[in-house]
Amino acid sequence: MTVLVLTGPEDVTADMVVDHLNTMGTPVLRVDPADFPERASLTAAFTSGGLSGRITTRHRSAELSAIRAIWVRRPGKPGAGARAQAAWVALESDHAWYGTLRALPDVRWMNHPDAHTAGRYKMRQLILAQSVGFRVPATLFTSVPGDAKGFAETHGPLVCKSVSGHAPDDPPLALPTTPVPEGTDFTAVAEAPTCLQSLVGKRSDIRLTVVGSEMFCARADQLARDQAELDWRYADPESVRWYAAPVPPDIRTKTEAFMRLAGLMYGAFDFAVTADETWHFLECNASGQFGFIELAAGLPISRAVADWLAGTADSP
Amino acid sequence: MTVLVLTGPEDVTADMVVDHLNTMGTPVLRVDPADFPERASLTAAFTSGGLSGRITTRHRSAELSAIRAIWVRRPGKPGAGARAQAAWVALESDHAWYGTLRALPDVRWMNHPDAHTAGRYKMRQLILAQSVGFRVPATLFTSVPGDAKGFAETHGPLVCKSVSGHAPDDPPLALPTTPVPEGTDFTAVAEAPTCLQSLVGKRSDIRLTVVGSEMFCARADQLARDQAELDWRYADPESVRWYAAPVPPDIRTKTEAFMRLAGLMYGAFDFAVTADETWHFLECNASGQFGFIELAAGLPISRAVADWLAGTADSP
Repeated sequence: MTVLVLTGPEDVTADMVVDHLNTMGTPVLRVDPADFPERASLTAAFTSGGLSGRITTRHRSAELSAIRAIWVRRPGKPGAGARAQAAWVALESDHAWYGTLRALPDVRWMNHPDAHTAGRYKMRQLILAQSVGFRVPATLFTSVPGDAKGFAETHGPLVCKSVSGHAPDDPPLALPTTPVPEGTDFTAVAEAPTCLQSLVGKRSDIRLTVVGSEMFCARADQLARDQAELDWRYADPESVRWYAAPVPPDIRTKTEAFMRLAGLMYGAFDFAVTADETWHFLECNASGQFGFIELAAGLPISRAVADWLAGTADSP
Repeated sequence: MTVLVLTGPEDVTADMVVDHLNTMGTPVLRVDPADFPERASLTAAFTSGGLSGRITTRHRSAELSAIRAIWVRRPGKPGAGARAQAAWVALESDHAWYGTLRALPDVRWMNHPDAHTAGRYKMRQLILAQSVGFRVPATLFTSVPGDAKGFAETHGPLVCKSVSGHAPDDPPLALPTTPVPEGTDFTAVAEAPTCLQSLVGKRSDIRLTVVGSEMFCARADQLARDQAELDWRYADPESVRWYAAPVPPDIRTKTEAFMRLAGLMYGAFDFAVTADETWHFLECNASGQFGFIELAAGLPISRAVADWLAGTADSP
């Protein structure tokens, strides 16, 4: 069996997992789809006998029939190196690459591309989270200034977030979760849809990393830092101290149900915990980083990912 | 109830379906996502009571709770009209728009975006087609010249096709299915992956359009035109005469199984029929046109689409 790891050349988190797989003696083919077709090749032959072929990089090769698990980590786009007809060659390369991988029988994906795509949409996440029993803050997506104003009156105080979770990159901006002052003018909402959410008066942040059926919970308390600093991703790293924490049984059950409904094998959940120890679901990032939390809280996440890919751990 | 039709302004096929829906008295909101947020607005409020809000165009408005069916016909991209931070606003708009629609409960999609995406990959189509019992020509996807040569020797004579089904657009090119001459030099395969397929010596082309549980079969015989003209899409239209034809019972059963496995509610299948009346699966286009075949072969496809969207027809 071979584990296919799809990621770019600079990825220390992937290095951690590949090290574990090497130690376990599990064959690994690490390849950046952006190298296809210039520095990596693919042949997939479909005949009456089924599908056969191989992926070859500069150093290694794997038969398609040997691939048992695919880790979609941080892959570049197939055909990225095309010199002529770049858009079309990229499309052709994407179809050849992912069409082949999607056609492989008996392969475990972390995560399957369809589950990954569906999992990126926040509104669907909120509905799923509510359906499994999580507490979820009231949230508005709108391009209508009057509706934003009405929501602020009913559900304020609010925070403002990126709808997609991304930020503009020209010029590169940071978009932390930001409090919305009372009396805000929402006119600009008409220019680009906006995500507004009821502020959760939190005492702690939770990052719950789920790998198959295993859960790794890290907690950071708000007390140590400025209460206005809502978003730990942009806070002074010295002020955020992650420590390993237990997962309450009801949270475990609800998280398992969420993973099942979302079709995810990996997910990084963010919760806000209020003074009464209620966990409020904020989001689930299907491709969330885990290297920093493994190091900060001493949680063996990369080992769990390796175990799952090697087939020695359970699915959720 | 309301049927949401997502398409651009110039779409006569959509007009045909909307006309039927109007005649049936089914409320329709037709909107191009490219108009969001400039000329169409969206509000989606998630609270403890669930999801509520509305989509508003210049002329109409629909409550989210009223939407029962979504026809993804030829939609433009949300946020296409953004003036500043265009890439990011497009991403934010896509997430607000499709995140909301994907979160709606009890909505029938023709087709669901995930099924549409998965359905575009040809290799997966071939595997599905084989698994339900269709005859499928041997097919190779490769970026390795030597593998192309070997496949030609074993499975020739071959045709060459676009992997993705698309053609370069700068300059705009047509890419019909093309015979591969014996002794072809496959060196350029290393530049862009290529799809090679065993030539099916066909007598007729079939376009089988599936709408929910209904099937509309059109046939065109090869005899009338040049045998070298393999691809009816690029043949002289005068030489291609589509006529309504019956669907053999075994083909119906296999097609139903394919639709179920692929999660599709609409699909346009292409088959090649050989002299012994064997149907060879070529592909299933989940967003294939049907207006031309409705007119040419007198098949009431737009009416069936309207019935399905209105909820008066069955799913496959």
